[in-house]
Parts: sequence; structure tokens; C-alpha cells
Amino acid sequence: MEPLFFTLNIIVPIIAVISIIVGILLIFKIKQMEEGSDEMKKIAKAIREGANAYLKREYFYMLIISIVLAVVFYFTLDFIFYGGIPFTLISFVLGCGDSILCGYIGMYIATQANIRTAYATKGGIGEGLKSAFNGGAALGSFMMGIILLSIFGLFNIYSFIGYTDPIYLTGFGFGGSLVCIFSRVGGGIYTKSADIGADLVGKVEKGIPEDDPRNPGVIADNVGDNVGDCVGMSADLFESLSITLVVSMIISFEPEINLGLNGLYFAILVVCAGIISFIVAIFITNKISAGNNPIKALNRGLLISGIISIVLFGAFAALMLFNQGAYTGGMWHFNLPIWVGVLLSAIMGLIVAIIIAYNTQIFTSGNHKYAREIAKAGETGPATNILKGYSIGLKSIAIPGVMVAITIIFAYEFAGIYGIALSSLGLLSMTGMIQSIDTFGAISDNAGGIAEMSGQDELRKNTDVLDEAGNTTAASAKGFAIISSGLVALATVGAVIDETNITNFVNIALNSPLIIAGLFIGAIIPFLFSSLLIGAVENTAFKMINEIRRQFKEIDGLMEGKSKPDYAKCVDIATKGALKNLIIPGIMGIIVSIAVGFILGKYALIACLFGNIVVGLLMAIFLANAGGAWDNAKKWIEKGNLGGKGSPAHKAAVIGDTIGDPFKDTAGPSINSLIKVMNMISLLIAPILAVIFL
Amino acid sequence: MEPLFFTLNIIVPIIAVISIIVGILLIFKIKQMEEGSDEMKKIAKAIREGANAYLKREYFYMLIISIVLAVVFYFTLDFIFYGGIPFTLISFVLGCGDSILCGYIGMYIATQANIRTAYATKGGIGEGLKSAFNGGAALGSFMMGIILLSIFGLFNIYSFIGYTDPIYLTGFGFGGSLVCIFSRVGGGIYTKSADIGADLVGKVEKGIPEDDPRNPGVIADNVGDNVGDCVGMSADLFESLSITLVVSMIISFEPEINLGLNGLYFAILVVCAGIISFIVAIFITNKISAGNNPIKALNRGLLISGIISIVLFGAFAALMLFNQGAYTGGMWHFNLPIWVGVLLSAIMGLIVAIIIAYNTQIFTSGNHKYAREIAKAGETGPATNILKGYSIGLKSIAIPGVMVAITIIFAYEFAGIYGIALSSLGLLSMTGMIQSIDTFGAISDNAGGIAEMSGQDELRKNTDVLDEAGNTTAASAKGFAIISSGLVALATVGAVIDETNITNFVNIALNSPLIIAGLFIGAIIPFLFSSLLIGAVENTAFKMINEIRRQFKEIDGLMEGKSKPDYAKCVDIATKGALKNLIIPGIMGIIVSIAVGFILGKYALIACLFGNIVVGLLMAIFLANAGGAWDNAKKWIEKGNLGGKGSPAHKAAVIGDTIGDPFKDTAGPSINSLIKVMNMISLLIAPILAVIFL
Repeated sequence: MEPLFFTLNIIVPIIAVISIIVGILLIFKIKQMEEGSDEMKKIAKAIREGANAYLKREYFYMLIISIVLAVVFYFTLDFIFYGGIPFTLISFVLGCGDSILCGYIGMYIATQANIRTAYATKGGIGEGLKSAFNGGAALGSFMMGIILLSIFGLFNIYSFIGYTDPIYLTGFGFGGSLVCIFSRVGGGIYTKSADIGADLVGKVEKGIPEDDPRNPGVIADNVGDNVGDCVGMSADLFESLSITLVVSMIISFEPEINLGLNGLYFAILVVCAGIISFIVAIFITNKISAGNNPIKALNRGLLISGIISIVLFGAFAALMLFNQGAYTGGMWHFNLPIWVGVLLSAIMGLIVAIIIAYNTQIFTSGNHKYAREIAKAGETGPATNILKGYSIGLKSIAIPGVMVAITIIFAYEFAGIYGIALSSLGLLSMTGMIQSIDTFGAISDNAGGIAEMSGQDELRKNTDVLDEAGNTTAASAKGFAIISSGLVALATVGAVIDETNITNFVNIALNSPLIIAGLFIGAIIPFLFSSLLIGAVENTAFKMINEIRRQFKEIDGLMEGKSKPDYAKCVDIATKGALKNLIIPGIMGIIVSIAVGFILGKYALIACLFGNIVVGLLMAIFLANAGGAWDNAKKWIEKGNLGGKGSPAHKAAVIGDTIGDPFKDTAGPSINSLIKVMNMISLLIAPILAVIFL
Repeated sequence: MEPLFFTLNIIVPIIAVISIIVGILLIFKIKQMEEGSDEMKKIAKAIREGANAYLKREYFYMLIISIVLAVVFYFTLDFIFYGGIPFTLISFVLGCGDSILCGYIGMYIATQANIRTAYATKGGIGEGLKSAFNGGAALGSFMMGIILLSIFGLFNIYSFIGYTDPIYLTGFGFGGSLVCIFSRVGGGIYTKSADIGADLVGKVEKGIPEDDPRNPGVIADNVGDNVGDCVGMSADLFESLSITLVVSMIISFEPEINLGLNGLYFAILVVCAGIISFIVAIFITNKISAGNNPIKALNRGLLISGIISIVLFGAFAALMLFNQGAYTGGMWHFNLPIWVGVLLSAIMGLIVAIIIAYNTQIFTSGNHKYAREIAKAGETGPATNILKGYSIGLKSIAIPGVMVAITIIFAYEFAGIYGIALSSLGLLSMTGMIQSIDTFGAISDNAGGIAEMSGQDELRKNTDVLDEAGNTTAASAKGFAIISSGLVALATVGAVIDETNITNFVNIALNSPLIIAGLFIGAIIPFLFSSLLIGAVENTAFKMINEIRRQFKEIDGLMEGKSKPDYAKCVDIATKGALKNLIIPGIMGIIVSIAVGFILGKYALIACLFGNIVVGLLMAIFLANAGGAWDNAKKWIEKGNLGGKGSPAHKAAVIGDTIGDPFKDTAGPSINSLIKVMNMISLLIAPILAVIFL
């Protein structure tokens, strides 16, 4: 082994372990903080228990499905193709296990940090900021470390016994995907059915504020924030980073680019760069106070992390790829040195992510014209509000869609499919920071809930500032997640094409009816999948609304605050609704990919993946932005515009916001995961398809 | 010239002329009927004038755009490529002119038949049925004749001067496309903004019935039915039949199938078969009374027309293609005789159209569970009603999508791209009947409006029966229009591939970044296009609502029926709203196709067309079905279910229905036309792209 690789084999695990340790230290740091009053503790405990109970049952379902799949994979892939060595089995189980562990830690830290954040705001917004930020940072740091350690470890173990092909790691990515789709779907249904139920009866019908302890659905709503936003996003980032890393490693060996171990180790180093920059960003965000402006603090963290990442990215590219010559493919034959090509691709990915995040801002923020137009359209009733929001959501996909098209074209010119993969990996090297600013939102939201429910109005004011900042940063985080999913999905199909041994590209040409049929089938999936999720939310919310209405009617003295509502009943409805509707959307993409692959063949499967990516990506952006715009239109009115709360425009906006809830927090993010899970199962079965379809 | 062709050159024009004469005779027949009371005449006149005024202005806009395009086409295509002979210019102008003529006649006949139908129901439902049916049949018969005569005439004239390539006819199809997209967009915006405005203020806020003469928006609403449903559908069918015929003729000369004049004349004969079967169906529908069951009568007409069409289709296929050998392409090499192959393709198209129509019924009709589920979901408010409808609409695309995929695969196996084209042409041979059952709905709707506005409650009862039948048959007609658009669009891309001289199919393989980018761009268009249309309806409806509210507030004695509303003001708002928002969506598809073709090249353009077809088709079906389901959910409640009119479920359903209005009657049908216009402009510029991109 070359001395360089030997050195890296020592340094990389050290960085991974440091990242894990930083995560654990941050957990301890949070645990040491004060929790606040007994009332607050009681509420926090109820949220924690609800989240725990739900997650246990969700993970139990996953466990069963994972075991079934693991057995199937072992006997189909490992036994027949990989000489009986359980490559897929081990990779897959580790991928699932790691992701579940991260999700669980995420839930744990979020439900510990929420109450402490609420209490910390006693000492000012800055203190609360640190607490909420560190909660997310703990998870982000732990997650990056564990992913790096696992993938790098597996690769080295497999190499040690003589198997250096990174295709054996696909199972790890698929494990992450499987956990993610179940987390996204289940968490999404849970959080939004609880949210809609609590809002429509509590806020609209009864006129009591958000998070009011008299509302029977309020604990379920707060549990939902944890199992939905927090665990869902953690599973999503786990999935994205894992599969982008694995796919980048696989593509490094593709004949077209043929970078071998240099490309593979470079991908590993990109993640290391991300860890280093993130640890610096954590330190700075904690040390330098941002006063009362949490967004500024978080954006600074993001900026620092981004700059250090990119600089290290360039340095490592020069280190690993300087001697790898130039990439001579593409249409225009730029013939750039490969290390320059990947650097340009990564910078391009970053710029596009920023443009897309900015696009999201323009289309959804209450400070821009669109959300205000939606609010105004509600003056003639809910129908015009909804039509306006729908129309604006549809429009919002144009720039992101064109940007993805441009990125694909240029990243490919710079460094082929490897360029596309690295443009995504460059973005995802910032996983830690993205996780932090996203979890920050969920923790602040919960902190506000605890403050409100325990009657601490003074704390509530400060948590509201954090919450608002959290909403903005979470929207940026979503933008990053969507664009990176799109890019890595496209890179993955490149790997699938290679691994299914497609060499005659005439077979995947658009003039073949099988390819057209594949495109249609792939395009149908996001429609059907969204239908199931939105339907499930509606269904569960319907039950929730009736239950909350029933409690307000039947429990004497509830409105007067003299008696307690039955929170557990609502938690139970959300839990059951989520679990009941989890399985079909969770396995749908997997079943369709396998069916298309084996029935219509590998060429149709490639087309199916493309149809799915194109439609899924645009639909996910539409759903996210329409939902965000409706939400902010309502908030803008609540600030006193157009007559403020209770005005006709506000009543319309509440309905629009409710429509948007499952769009932006259930269907939208889940489609992200759907795209990836379909790609990963296809990559997993690619070696089989390569043999049975010539 | 062979004797067969010589004979056909005499027979075909005769059939075409007979078809035109039948149409004209039917118009006279309707004109001879009695008009009814003076009050009715006054209302009918107001509707007619409003429709006339709008159409004149819409056609003026089209005229300007057509002149510009005609000049551009002449100098780019005819002058450079076709030796200065104005093939494109003449074809295009004739296509535009014919379509405008048909649209105008459609509007004329509809606004003549509406009042007569209302009055005819005095003599029973059967009399009204005949009148409304004959109105549509007049248009259908005239249209089929004029299309056949024009295309066949042009072909023969061009042949006579030595140019037999049917590519010179593309301009005719594009002319039809251009008129169609403007008619669909403008008419769709007009009809729905008027409808929403009249309904939300009149029915919801003021509690007065549909078509109540006190409602200031009621004339605009009735004008909308004519310029939207009637003229829009006529332009749509004109477009579909024209381009399917032209494309079938072009494909007949493709090297893959190489049927030459035999294939070309066969396509012509399929339309003749359609005319013959339609004339028989008109006769039978008029002679044999169906008593009080209009649906039965119309379905019988459809059935008769379908059976005769298919039998003649088979006979003509045997006549023209018996000696053309077998189609040996495809994956499975069925090696069927070509005449059997096209017959199977056409039967397949028909079966799929029936399945899709049935799917529409299941997902939208109030007699099936889905619409009722939507109604029930409204018991907890508008948000749940809308989410449920949205979810059901998304689900409804699965079967149609899969059916299109299956049809493509099999029609291709049976007879290559020619099979796909003929599967669509087989369907469209029933254009006359489809037009009749669709226009029937618009006329009945208007008849009801006139009866109501003139206070003839007795007539209203009968027209309501006709109206309900019209809603059902119009939904089937829409199903036919959508599926035939999808099939012909795919066949057209086949022609574009051929005419751009793409022979190395590696260049349109899915592993190329340009192809992926093309798919994305094509997929973006239906999103953006729908956004513009839904936004335009919302915007115009917003103004309409405020105007109607103003009139109710400011005009003394309006609610008491003592003074008249200012109908003209509302007609003006709808007219301006439609015209203002017409241009951009009307030319968007054309501009994008040209831009992609010339900037990214012909390969990316092919991908763009596919992305557009796949997404557009599924989105159009979603929009149509979601809208239909919301509509029928409301109607089901209005029949007395779930508390009937005025119940919370009904209030929610009214909002759902309003959301669905621009979905099903503006954006959905317009996307249909968008798909076709993009394909036709691409086919038109194909010879240029063939030269500049090698």
C-alpha cells in the first residue's frame, strides 16, 4: 500500500472518532444545563415519552422489514454473487443500525434540549441559541463521525480480505435509505395530523392560542415536531451523506473516469473536511455571542463551515487527484485537470444550493411579495387564497429545475459523473451544520411549546425569536437537502447504468417504447406516493379533529382550565395513524423498482429512475414551497396585516396553511427519500440485472 | 396513378363534402326551431353578444400572432428549405382559418341551440335532447368534413406540382394547435373566473340559486360556457384530428415502416370511416327516441359510431395494407401482417380509452366512493375536503398512466410508430360523436341558464336532466381527448426524431447530461403553464368577486329583484382577464421548444418533448379528475346527503369545487393543447434542426 493511503488509514478514523466524541461531549454539556420548573419538567417528560413510545413502535416495524430484506439480500446477492460472504447483509444491517441510532440520539437530545433551551432563555436569547444550536450540533457531529467510521471501516475490512470493490458498500446506503423513508413517512404523517388537529379545533374553532395546555392535541403536536422534523431530517441527512459517499466511491472506479483508490480516498477526505470545518464552526458559534440576532449567528456558522469546507476540498483535491490527469469526456472537451474539475463541480453545487435557498426565500418568505399576494387573495375567501398559493408553488419550481439542469450539464463537462457525485458530496460535507440549523428549529419550537404550556410568558417571548429564526434556517436546510438529493440521485443512476453493465446506450434511447413506458411508470410513483401520504394525514387529522372536538364538548371545565384534557388519547391517534399508513408508501418505491427491473428489464428500470427523479424532484420543491408560502402568508397576516387575526383574510389563510402542512412537511420531504430509496435498491440489484439481461 | 388512388381521389372529397353539407343542414334544422318567449330571447341575445364580442377580440390577437408566425415561417422554412414555394405558409394559414371557422360556427350554433333546447323541452326531454345533440353534431360533422377536405386537398395540390412529401402539411396541424392553445387558455380563464365569481358571491354569500338573474355575473358565466367548453373543445378536437391525420401520413413514409401512399391513403380513409359512422349515428339518434334517458341515447350513439368505425377501419386496413407485408420490428417480433397490426393498435386505443373513461367515472362520479369520501371529509372543514380531493386526484392518474405505457409498448410491437399513430387516429375517427356529446353538455347547461333566468321553472326541470347527462358525457369526451393527445404526441415525437434526421440513437440515450437537462426543462413547462393559468383565473375571479359584491351593495333593490344588475361590467372583467393572460401561456410552449432546439440542440429537444408529454399528460389527468371529484362531491351533498345544502360539509365542498374549477376546466384541458403545440412546432422546425445539428 502506498504511504499516502497508509497515513490516511490512520488519520481518517481519528477524525471520525473525534467527531463522535465532540457529539457526545455536547450531549453532556446540554445534560448539565438546568431544566427549569417542575411544571416544565412534567410537560417535557410527556413529550419525551410520547416520542419514545412512537419511535419504539416505528423502529419495530422497520426491524421486521429489515430482517426480511436482509435475509432476501443474503440469499439473492451475497450467496449467489458474492461467494457467500455477507457483504450486503453486513453493510445493510450496519446502515440501518447506524441510522436508527442517530435518529434515536436525535430524538433524545432534542427532547432534552427543548426544556433546557426554554429555561436558558431566562439568561437572554443568546443562551437559548447556544443550547438549541448545540443540541443539533451534537447530533450532526455524532452522525458525520459514525458514517465516516462505518463506511471507511467496512471498506478497509472488505479490502483486507481482498475485496476492494466499493459496490459491496451499497447495502449501507440502502439501509440508510430504508430507515429514512420510514422515518420521513411515519414522522410526517404523525406531526401533521397532530398539528392540523390541534390547530383547526384549538386555534380556529375555540380561539385559544398555539400550544395552549387546554388543547388535547398539544402534546401530540409537540411530539410530532420531534419525530417528524428532527428524526426525519436526521434520517434524511444520514441517508444523503451515506449514499453520496458510497456512490462517489463506486463511481471513482468507473471506466469513464477510472480514478481508482485516489478518487475513493478523495471522497472520504471530503467528509473529513466537512467534519473539521464543522468543529471549528461549532466552537465559533459557541464562543462569539451574536446578541439578540440568532439568524446572524447561524448564518455565520454556515458561512464559516462552508468556506473552510471548500478550501479543504480544494486542498484535498490537489493532494489526491493532482496526478490523475485531465477529464477528456463531455461535449465541449474542456479537458480540465481532474482536481480542478471536481473543485469546480463542488463550487457549482454550492452556488446552486444558495440560489435555490434564495429562490425558496423569495417564494415563501413573508418579507417578499408572493406570500403577501397569497394573503391578499384570501380577502375573497379561502378558495382564492388556495388557488393563489397553488399557482405560486407551481411557479417556484422553474429556477430550481433549470439550475439542476445546468448543474448536470456543467458538472458533467468538468468531471463526468464523478463531477456530479462530487458536486453533491461537496454540499453534504456541510451536513453537520445543516443538521444543526434544522434541529435548532425543532428544539426552539418545542421550547416555545413548553414555555407556553407551563405558563412562562416571559420565556415564551424569547423562544419566539428563536423559533422564527429556526423557521428560516430550516427552510434553507430543506433547500440543501432537496438539491443534494437530486444531484446524488442522478449520479446514482450513472452508477446503476455502469453496474447493470449497460454498454450499448442505444438500448436506453428515447425512441424505444420500453424506455417511454419506464419514464411513465417512474413519473407515476411520486403522484401515487404523495396521494397516499396526503390522504393519510387527512384521514388521521379527521379522527384527531373529532377527538379534540369530543374532549372539548365532553370534559367539563376544560375551556376554563379547571380540568385536564386527555393528551394520551391524541398521542395514540397520531401514533396509530402514522404506523398504519407507514408500510405501503415505505415499500412502494422498492417494490416498483424491483418489479420494473425484473419484468421490463434493466433498460426500462433506468428510464423509470429518471422519470421518478425528474417528476419527484420538481414535485417535492413545489410541495415544499407552496406549503411554506401558505404558512408565511398566514404568519404575515398574524403580524397585523390585512386586518390581522380573526379577519376574513386570516380565516382563509388558516385553511391555506392547513392544506400546506402535509405538502411541506409530509409529502415533500418524503419524496426526497423516495427518490433515493429507489435509486439505492436499483443499485443493489444491479449486479443481478447485469447477468439476467444482456 | 394506380386506379385505386384515382378512385379514392374522387370518393374522399365527396365524403368530405357530404359531411360538410350534413353539418350545414343540421344548422338550418336548428334555426327553424322555435325560440320561446321574448324574455328568453333577450337573455340568449345577451349571451350571444358577449360570446361574439369576446371571440372577435380573441381571434384578433390570434390573427396578429399568426401573421407574425406566417411571415417567419415563410422566410425560414419555405424560402430556404422548400424552394420558395409557400407550403408552410399556406398550410398554416389554412389550418388557422379552418379552426377559427369551426370555433366560430361552434359558438354560433351553441348560442342558437341553447334557447331552442330550453324551449323544446316543453315537448319533453326527448325533444330537448335532439336539439342539443344536433347542435353538437352540426359542428362535429362540419369539422370532420372541412379537415378531411383541406388536408386531402392540400396534399393533392402539392402532389400535383410534384411535392408528395406530407411533411409540407405540418403547418396545417400547427395552425390548428395554435388556435387551440389560445382558445383553451383564453376560454378556460374566461369561463372559470366568471363561474367562480358568480358562484362564490351569488350562491355562497347571498344564497341565491345558480343562474339567478339577480346575479350580476350570470351572463358572463353563460358566455363562459360557450367560449370555454364549446369553442375550447371544438378547437381541441380540430387540433387532435388534424395533427393525428398529418402525423399518420408523415409516418407512413418513415423508413422503419415505409408504407408510402398506401399508408397515407389508409389514414385518410380512417377519417372517412369516421364520417360515415357518424352520419349513421346522427340519423339513429334523431330517429329512435330514448324517452327520458338522454345518457342512454348518447351512449347508444357513441356505441354505434364506435362499432361502425372499427368495422370500416378493419375493412379499409385490409383494402389498403393487405399487400404491404408484415411489421418485423419491435422486441418480440410478432411479425404480424401490417393491416392486422394497425387494426389491433386501433382496437387497443379504443379499449384503453374506455378504461380511462371508466377510471374517470370511478374517481369522480358521485355514485362511487371517492367523491363521497371527499364530501365526508368536509365534515371537519374545507381543509380536509381539499386534502382528500387532492389526494384522490393524485391517485387517479395511476391506471391511465400505466395504460398509456402498455399501449405504447404493444402498439409499437404491432406496427411500430405507425401503430401508435393509428391507435390515436382510430379513436379520433369518432371526433364527430365526441364533439356532439361534449357540445351537448354546454348547450344543455346554457339552456338551463336561460330557463332559470327567464323564470321558466317547468322547463328548468327538464333541462336539468339534460344538464346532468351532459356532465357525464362531457367527462367521457374529456377522457378521449386526453388519451388521444397523449398517443398522438408520442407518435409525433417519433416523426420529429425522423425528420430531424436522428439516426444514431446513442445521442438520445438517457446517460447524456443534455438529455437529462432536456427532460427537466420539458417537465418544468406544465408546472409553469398551470401556474400561469390558475393564477390568471384566481386573479380575474378576485376582481369579479369584488365587482359582484359591489353591485349587490350599491344597486338598490337588486336582491329584491326590483332593479337589474350591470351584467356588461362582469362580461367585461372576464373578457379583459382572459385576453390579458392569454399571450404568455399561449406562446410559452412554442418559445421554449424553439429555444431548446436551437440552443441545446435537437437531441435535447427530443428529451424536452418527452419530459413535457410524461409530466403534462399525468398532470392534466390529475387536474381533470381532482376537479371533477370535488365538483361531484358537492353535487352529491346537494342531493341531500350529509345534511344537504347549507351544512358544514356543503360549505366545505363549495370551496373544494371552486379550487377544482380552474383545475378541470382551465389548466387541465390547456395542458393537453400545450403538449400538442410543442410537438407541432418541433416537427415544423425539424428540417432546420436536421441541417444545423448533425
